[in-house]
Amino acid sequence: MSKRLRKIGVMTSGGDSPGMNAAIRAVVRACAYYHIDCVGYYRGFQGMINGESVELNARSVRNIINLGGTILQSARSKEFMTEEGRSRAAENLKKDEVDAMILIGGDGTFRGGLALSEEHGIQVMGVPGTIDNDIYGTNYTIGYDTALNTVVEAIDKIRDTASSHNRLFFVEVMGRDAGFIALTSGIGAGAEEILIPEENLGLERLLNSLEHSRRAGKTSSIVVVSEGDKIGKNVFELADYVRENLPYYDARVTVLGHIQRGGRPSCFDRVLASRLSVKAVELLLDGQKNLMVGLINNDIESCSLEKALKGKHTINKDLLRISEILST
Amino acid sequence: MSKRLRKIGVMTSGGDSPGMNAAIRAVVRACAYYHIDCVGYYRGFQGMINGESVELNARSVRNIINLGGTILQSARSKEFMTEEGRSRAAENLKKDEVDAMILIGGDGTFRGGLALSEEHGIQVMGVPGTIDNDIYGTNYTIGYDTALNTVVEAIDKIRDTASSHNRLFFVEVMGRDAGFIALTSGIGAGAEEILIPEENLGLERLLNSLEHSRRAGKTSSIVVVSEGDKIGKNVFELADYVRENLPYYDARVTVLGHIQRGGRPSCFDRVLASRLSVKAVELLLDGQKNLMVGLINNDIESCSLEKALKGKHTINKDLLRISEILST
Amino acid sequence: MSKRLRKIGVMTSGGDSPGMNAAIRAVVRACAYYHIDCVGYYRGFQGMINGESVELNARSVRNIINLGGTILQSARSKEFMTEEGRSRAAENLKKDEVDAMILIGGDGTFRGGLALSEEHGIQVMGVPGTIDNDIYGTNYTIGYDTALNTVVEAIDKIRDTASSHNRLFFVEVMGRDAGFIALTSGIGAGAEEILIPEENLGLERLLNSLEHSRRAGKTSSIVVVSEGDKIGKNVFELADYVRENLPYYDARVTVLGHIQRGGRPSCFDRVLASRLSVKAVELLLDGQKNLMVGLINNDIESCSLEKALKGKHTINKDLLRISEILST
Amino acid sequence: MSKRLRKIGVMTSGGDSPGMNAAIRAVVRACAYYHIDCVGYYRGFQGMINGESVELNARSVRNIINLGGTILQSARSKEFMTEEGRSRAAENLKKDEVDAMILIGGDGTFRGGLALSEEHGIQVMGVPGTIDNDIYGTNYTIGYDTALNTVVEAIDKIRDTASSHNRLFFVEVMGRDAGFIALTSGIGAGAEEILIPEENLGLERLLNSLEHSRRAGKTSSIVVVSEGDKIGKNVFELADYVRENLPYYDARVTVLGHIQRGGRPSCFDRVLASRLSVKAVELLLDGQKNLMVGLINNDIESCSLEKALKGKHTINKDLLRISEILST
Repeated sequence: MSKRLRKIGVMTSGGDSPGMNAAIRAVVRACAYYHIDCVGYYRGFQGMINGESVELNARSVRNIINLGGTILQSARSKEFMTEEGRSRAAENLKKDEVDAMILIGGDGTFRGGLALSEEHGIQVMGVPGTIDNDIYGTNYTIGYDTALNTVVEAIDKIRDTASSHNRLFFVEVMGRDAGFIALTSGIGAGAEEILIPEENLGLERLLNSLEHSRRAGKTSSIVVVSEGDKIGKNVFELADYVRENLPYYDARVTVLGHIQRGGRPSCFDRVLASRLSVKAVELLLDGQKNLMVGLINNDIESCSLEKALKGKHTINKDLLRISEILST
Repeated sequence: MSKRLRKIGVMTSGGDSPGMNAAIRAVVRACAYYHIDCVGYYRGFQGMINGESVELNARSVRNIINLGGTILQSARSKEFMTEEGRSRAAENLKKDEVDAMILIGGDGTFRGGLALSEEHGIQVMGVPGTIDNDIYGTNYTIGYDTALNTVVEAIDKIRDTASSHNRLFFVEVMGRDAGFIALTSGIGAGAEEILIPEENLGLERLLNSLEHSRRAGKTSSIVVVSEGDKIGKNVFELADYVRENLPYYDARVTVLGHIQRGGRPSCFDRVLASRLSVKAVELLLDGQKNLMVGLINNDIESCSLEKALKGKHTINKDLLRISEILST
Repeated sequence: MSKRLRKIGVMTSGGDSPGMNAAIRAVVRACAYYHIDCVGYYRGFQGMINGESVELNARSVRNIINLGGTILQSARSKEFMTEEGRSRAAENLKKDEVDAMILIGGDGTFRGGLALSEEHGIQVMGVPGTIDNDIYGTNYTIGYDTALNTVVEAIDKIRDTASSHNRLFFVEVMGRDAGFIALTSGIGAGAEEILIPEENLGLERLLNSLEHSRRAGKTSSIVVVSEGDKIGKNVFELADYVRENLPYYDARVTVLGHIQRGGRPSCFDRVLASRLSVKAVELLLDGQKNLMVGLINNDIESCSLEKALKGKHTINKDLLRISEILST
Repeated sequence: MSKRLRKIGVMTSGGDSPGMNAAIRAVVRACAYYHIDCVGYYRGFQGMINGESVELNARSVRNIINLGGTILQSARSKEFMTEEGRSRAAENLKKDEVDAMILIGGDGTFRGGLALSEEHGIQVMGVPGTIDNDIYGTNYTIGYDTALNTVVEAIDKIRDTASSHNRLFFVEVMGRDAGFIALTSGIGAGAEEILIPEENLGLERLLNSLEHSRRAGKTSSIVVVSEGDKIGKNVFELADYVRENLPYYDARVTVLGHIQRGGRPSCFDRVLASRLSVKAVELLLDGQKNLMVGLINNDIESCSLEKALKGKHTINKDLLRISEILST
C-alpha cells in the first residue's frame, strides 16, 4: 500500500432500504476505530456533485442503528450520468481530501462508482443495499430480510380479513426484475400461488390451481404477485381475469407499495449491514479497491465490482417446488 | 322480565374488524358466567339462513382475544335483504331455541337486526364493530383504534423512504363516507395535509399548502386522503394534478387497502370489545332489547338501535385545526 | 393579558413516556404557528439549573412524532428540591427571556413547576406525560396507551409459550402506586387474575381462583401483577407460594421492566400529546397559568395544578368485575 | 426401500420456539402432497406415552403458519427417560401404525428419538427447533431469527428510555450454554458490551470498557448478558458491581425472559421451517432414517443424529471483534 488512507467518504444511493443507517454507522465507527476521518455525502452522487457533505464521527451515528431510511438521504442523479457531473463529483472529493468512497446501494450505484474509479482514479468499495436482493456476489442484500418481514406481516393482516370473508386476494409486492421478495415472502405468508418474473406459469395454470384449492376445501386464498410478473397482465387485470373465469371467487387486490422500503431494520439486516461495512473499511485499509463485499455462506467475502455487475443472482427454483407442496 | 333467557346467539357481520374475536369471547364467557347457553352463527345473517351454527362454551374461545379477523367469519348477505331470507333465519333461530341475538357489526348489521326484530319478534342487541368509527351512539367502534395504529405504522415506514428521497406521498386510507381514520391517523402520522369527505378544501388550497410547506423548508411530505374524499379526484388523479402544478415534487401514491382491516387488536380494542359485549349480555339478561351498546365518555351506555341508525357520528372538526397548526 | 408572550420554554421531566416527543413537537409547532419563540431545556429541571437549552423551531422537530423517549431527555433533579436550585433555574429562565414554561411530566414535575411559580412568578402549564396514568384531571396520560400495547404484546408472546407448555405465568407490570396498567392490560391480555395495589384480594382467593381455572379445564394461565401489589409478597414470592400450594402448576415469573417505557407511540398517544400540547400553548397565549391540560370525555379541558396534585385518579373498579367474568 | 411409508407421526418437544407451527404445517402438507397419512402427538414424548394423538390433514394446519407456540404443545417428559416409558411410547406408535416419526426440537429431543430408534427400531428424523441456535449440523435453528428480532425490538425500547435518562442497562437474554442470542442481538441492538458464556473477558475489562465509553462521550449504554455468562456473577450482581465501581452510572437491569420464546415467527423462520420439514418428509420417503435436516450455506442438508448430538455449533468469534469495533 503506497499511501496511508486518511479519509473515507460514504454515501447511500438508489432506492433506500432498511439497514442503510446501520451500514453508515458501521462505516463511521470502523473509521473511528482505525483512526481514519469519515465524511458523508448527502443524496448519493448528487451530494458529491453539489459538495453537500458532513463530517461524521463515532457520536454522529449514535441511536441510528434502529432507524429505517438513511440519514444521508438517497437519490438517483441524472447529472452524474454525464461526464461533467462525474468530474464535478471527483473534484469535490479531491477538495475534501477523500481517499476512498464507500458506496451503499445497488447496481446503478456500483456502475456509477466504477465510472468514477475509471475516469478519475477514485478508490471505491461497494456495499449491497437494496430490498430487492438482486445483486450478484452476496446471498443477501441489506434490507431484503426486513422487507420480507414487512410483506409477511401485511399479508398476515390481509389473511385475517380474507379468511373472515372467504376471499381471494392478489397482493402485489416489489421486484420489477426479480422474484426474490415474492417467492420468499409468498412461502412465509403461506400463499397459494406465487407469480414471479422468472417463471411464467401461464394463466391456465393459475386458474387450475385456484380451482384445485377450492375443491380441496380452501375458502380463502392469497396470491402473491411480483410487480414484474411476466404473465402479461398487471395485478388488477389478473384479478379481473380470475373473476371472469372463476366467478365464485370474490377477488380483491392490494398493492403493498412503498411500505416495503421503510421500517425498523430486522436484527438480520443490522448485523449484515454491520459486518459488510466493517469489512469494506478494512479492505480499503488493506489497499484493496473496486470490490463489492457480500455475504457468501455466512462469511463476508468480496468480489470485483465488474463481476458483481455482470453476474446474475438467480432465485432458488427449489422454493417454487416447496411452495407448490405447501399449498396442497 | 317475563321469561328467563336460556340461550343467546352471536354473530359477526359486515366488514370484519380487529377485536371482533375479543367481542365473541366476551359474549361467550359472559354467557358461561351467567349460566346461559351460547351459539355462534357463521358468516353473519347468511349462516342464520343456512343454519350454520356452533355451540360455544368458555373453552371454545380460549386464545382468540389476540387474533385479528373473526372465528365466526363475516359476510354481507343478499338473501337476508329479502323477506323470505329473514323468515328462514328466524325459523332457524327458533329451531335452535335462541332467545336473543347479539349482532357485532355496523349500520347494515343493525338494520338487519331491527328487521328481524320487527318481523319476527327476535330480541337483538347491537355491538358496534367496524374500523370506520362511523356509528352514532359510541365514541369508538371496535377495530378503529387498531386500524389507526396500522395506518400510522404504515405511514411511518413510508415517511422513512419519503424523507430519504425528498418525496411527496399521497396515502389513501379507508373511510368511504367518513373521515375518522384519515383525520386521526393523519395527525398521528404527522401528515402535512389531510383530505376527508366532510370537508372539501379545494385543490387550490392543497397546492397553496404544499407550496407553503416547500418554502418553509420541508423536503418531504405526506398527504393522507380518505377513500371517500370529495375533492373530485381519486388519489391517483390528485397526484397527477399536483405533479403538473408543482413539478418540483416527486409525487407518489400508496393505497393502504385491506391491511387496515386485519392484525392483532390493540389493547384499547380488546378492552372496548370486552366491556361492550359483557354489557350486551347483561342488558339482555335484564330484559332489554333492540339496543346498541356504546362507549360514551369512558362509560358503557346504550341507546335504541333506531337512534343509532338515525343519528350521525360526526368528526371532531377541532382536529382539522390541530392538523393545520401541527403542519406549520 | 397584560403583556404579550414572546417566548415559551418546554421540558420533559420524570420518567419518560412514549409520546413525549409528539408533545414537544406540538408545543414547538404551535409556537411557530402563533409566532412565538420556543426554547427547550434538557433533562428537565436540571437543564434549567445548568442553563442547558436549545432554540427550537418548526424544523427542529421534524420526524420525531414517531420516536419513543424524549429528544430533550429527562431526569429527576435533586438540586431542584432546594431553594437555591430553583433560584438558579429561575435566573436562567429570565436570562433566556422565557415568559412561560410548559412542563411535560407527572406529579413530581408539576409540584416543581408550582414551586417555581410561587417562588419566582414563572407562569407554568402542565402536560400530563407518564405511562402510569395516575394523574388527576385527565382520563389518559401521554404514554399510557402505548405502554398497554407493549404489555399486551409481551403477554401475547408469553401466552404462546404458556399454552404450549401448560404453564402458569406471573407477569409483573409497572405501577407502583396505581393498578391502571395491570388492570387494563390484564383484561386486554386475557389474564386469569389481576393483582393491583388498590384491591387486596388475599392469597386465599388467588389459590381458589387458580384451582377453579384448573378444574374448568384451563391448562395454562396468566396472572398480571402490578409492581405495587399489596398482597404482601413480591412476584417471585407469589410464584413460590403458588408452587407450594398448587404443586401441579409449573409457575414461572416474568418482570417486564423498562420495555414498558419505550417504543414508538401509538396513534392514540400521538394525537393526545398533540391536542394537549397545542392547548397548553393556547392557554398561555390566553393569559392563563398554573393549569394542567387533560383529556376529559374526549375534550381537552384544564384544571389548576393544585387540583391536579391534590386529586386522585382512581381506577374503574367495574373493570375488576369484567375481568372476573371474562376469566370464567 | 423395503416397505412403502404409509403414515408419519410428528411432534414438538423441549422448549417451544416460533416457527414450530410452520414446521408442523409443512410436515402435514408434504404428507398430503405425497399421499401419506399424518398423525400428531401432543406434548412431545409424553403424548406418545399417553397415546394422545390427532389425525392431521392439509386443512388441519390452515392459518397456523403465522402463530407462535405449537398447536401440538410441547413438554419435557421424565417418564420417557425410563425404558418403560419409551416402551409404552413405541407400543402406541405401533398401535397407530406410524411408520416413522418427525421430531421437532433440540438436543434432548434428538437423544430421545435416537433411543426410540435403537431400542424399538422406530425410524426418526430430526428437525432443529429451538431459539438457542445451539445445534450442530445447521447454521440456523427454527425460532432463532424470531428471538433475535424480539430481543432487538425490546432493547430498542429500553434504549429509548436509557438515552432519555443517561442510564446504563444490563439486559439478560436467553442462552444458558451458548451465546448465540446475546452475541447476535447485541450487535443488532448496538450494545456497548456483550457477555457470553464462551468468552470470559473478566470484570476488569468490563469496567475499562464502560469507562472508555463514558470518556468517549456516551451518556447511555446497553450491556447484553447471556443468562449463562461465566463472569461469575448473575446480572443483578453485575449491576451492583458496576454501580460500586463506577458510581456515576445509573445502572438498571432487565431480564427479558419468556417473551423470547413466543411471538409471530419471522419470514426467515417460516421459510426455514418449511424447507426443513418438507425435506424431512422426503428423506423418509427416500428410505433414510435417524438423520437431522439442517440449513448449511443456504441449502438443506442432512447429517446423522449421532453427529448432530456429538458436534458442537460454535459461535462466530469474528462477531466479538465486530462488536468491539462498533462500540467505539
